[in-house]
Amino acid sequence: MPLHDHDPYARWLALGRVKGLGGVGFKKLASSFGDPTEAFFASTAELEQVEGLHREAIHGLVNFSGWVEVDDELRRIRDAGVSLVRFTSPQYPARLRMIADPPPCLYLKGEFRAEDERAVAIVGSRSASDYGRRVARDLARGLASFGFTVVSGMARGIDGAAHESALKTGGRTIAVLGSGVERAYPPEHEPLYHRISETGAVVSELPVGTRPMAFNFPARNRLISGLSLGVVVVEATEKSGSLITAALALEQGREVFAVPGEAGASRSRGAHRLIRQGAKLVETVDDIVEEIAPQLARRAGGMTERPARVLPPNAEENTKRVFALLQDNPLQVDQVIERSGLSAALVLEVLLDLELQGFVRQSPGKVYFAEK
Amino acid sequence: MPLHDHDPYARWLALGRVKGLGGVGFKKLASSFGDPTEAFFASTAELEQVEGLHREAIHGLVNFSGWVEVDDELRRIRDAGVSLVRFTSPQYPARLRMIADPPPCLYLKGEFRAEDERAVAIVGSRSASDYGRRVARDLARGLASFGFTVVSGMARGIDGAAHESALKTGGRTIAVLGSGVERAYPPEHEPLYHRISETGAVVSELPVGTRPMAFNFPARNRLISGLSLGVVVVEATEKSGSLITAALALEQGREVFAVPGEAGASRSRGAHRLIRQGAKLVETVDDIVEEIAPQLARRAGGMTERPARVLPPNAEENTKRVFALLQDNPLQVDQVIERSGLSAALVLEVLLDLELQGFVRQSPGKVYFAEK
Repeated sequence: MPLHDHDPYARWLALGRVKGLGGVGFKKLASSFGDPTEAFFASTAELEQVEGLHREAIHGLVNFSGWVEVDDELRRIRDAGVSLVRFTSPQYPARLRMIADPPPCLYLKGEFRAEDERAVAIVGSRSASDYGRRVARDLARGLASFGFTVVSGMARGIDGAAHESALKTGGRTIAVLGSGVERAYPPEHEPLYHRISETGAVVSELPVGTRPMAFNFPARNRLISGLSLGVVVVEATEKSGSLITAALALEQGREVFAVPGEAGASRSRGAHRLIRQGAKLVETVDDIVEEIAPQLARRAGGMTERPARVLPPNAEENTKRVFALLQDNPLQVDQVIERSGLSAALVLEVLLDLELQGFVRQSPGKVYFAEK
Repeated sequence: MPLHDHDPYARWLALGRVKGLGGVGFKKLASSFGDPTEAFFASTAELEQVEGLHREAIHGLVNFSGWVEVDDELRRIRDAGVSLVRFTSPQYPARLRMIADPPPCLYLKGEFRAEDERAVAIVGSRSASDYGRRVARDLARGLASFGFTVVSGMARGIDGAAHESALKTGGRTIAVLGSGVERAYPPEHEPLYHRISETGAVVSELPVGTRPMAFNFPARNRLISGLSLGVVVVEATEKSGSLITAALALEQGREVFAVPGEAGASRSRGAHRLIRQGAKLVETVDDIVEEIAPQLARRAGGMTERPARVLPPNAEENTKRVFALLQDNPLQVDQVIERSGLSAALVLEVLLDLELQGFVRQSPGKVYFAEK
């Protein structure tokens, strides 16, 4: 079957299987091509124009030969009642789109909603104490009643307590799995899995059929933080995966919160280390909202009075430079490239990010406006 | 009896009773007069030369009439077996001399030792939990075994646990009272009081006979922090006096440490607030030593290799300016005044502080050298 005849979803699934591409390479394609799956039709020479794209990824794209497996997977997806959310879909969570290594495609049970933009992750130890589970429940209940979506990893312990409590409060909750999205893991969380997928969302970037393997969990953690305004670490030993999630959250410019425990409690050692390193100490949901409210106020303000949009202070230098250029006049892409002194690929990437975050708008003829 | 005939100690006690003088006014006298008790022989005009000395203090000095009470007190002091340590005595703790409002005179049961320079305070709630007392004991034992003197306020709860544990470890401990130094308060701490005064020091700035009154405790707390390199708050409610001690420690440029507890525990709320405001989260004595070690290393280094002395980063601008002037050449006081552009009184104060801290040395003829 010739390449062009493939189901458009197949090309998105294929992007996730290209050797050497990964989320970082994919993001570069997404910045260079209006439709990143067009990369399969590009020549080596064209792909070499994509700044920062590794030779291995180019080779993997040009020589991609996994279509049979992809078609198999599409069948499995349909059989499992799983939906696919492509990077370019309006359903794809905007905050996740902003990270450096977003998945081309998300596997979904349930659905994303607009209000999931206001999401906070709660993560922690699988072998949580009664105290830890109580705090996780209290925080999840508080967040849910403030209208926040609670994101977690559906693991035993803290994760489960957070999901349960959000559901009980009638709030939204999203579980990000380290296996195929159709698998309820751990087994005792099967009822929880069904309740989350019925009223919230269970999501994964791993192909249907992938078993829960420990080496998939760190990559999964970047999605937990990537979906969220901030990450709350409730209990974590010193080698906990929650510390990885916290580190990823920092890289992604998200807030990191940690709940203290008693001095010497091994389950609180990780949280205490985070606090020493600058994470905000959290006792109640108010401590979280206080920190996050300024970001939300800015967003909400934009919808009513529409004051001039202000980039977050942790925006990259290049992003600031491009956004500043657009403050006075709308500009064509070429003008932005010329005046910024940045490479074309970089400018396209920055403009895409700004557009996705709602800071700039594109009018016909590729003229970019700063949103007022 | 003419003024000059008074016991020299009487004049020091009198300085503590001059209306409107206080510790801040006293420090100004100490910077202007080689012997601050000379202020009793100074004219109004001479006292008006002392920069920043309030009119009320000048009036109080010139019209001082409390000699009968002072003589009474001297008798009581002898009867109670209390010793007096004057501000100019080598026994007066050097670190306490550096604060903005040091007492002219300390009442002492027991003795100060050179090693009390390495002191850390442990303070906290009177109604401490078992957990709080356990942490106070663990930290005090750790500090004592590292050779630190443990300073506290001999109150019920955390204070008592810290003193007890330091004594048990065979370490030094200092109790700072909010009453006359001869009073064992609270009554159930009488055995503790005797053990501290036998192997450590019980100290107060309040005249013998002063009863323990709540309004004296905040002023007492500045001595707890003033004697110490840092203050550890173990348990503190939101209205705890320990938070005052922590605030004073910050003003004095001392480290502030706080021990976390469980989220929502009312006794940990104060400590959590301190951590949010930047206090170092402490679980074990290592967390304290790690923070304090650089200061001590500088001091110890000075005794062996004698590297150039470096002012602490939180030194005042004026202190830095004066110290910088002395780096190249020894200077006479007048030269320092001229080149610094600061007032004579201020230069004298700064030089005194620098000398007391061991950063400069005075040779005959009032020539000042920076210590190398």
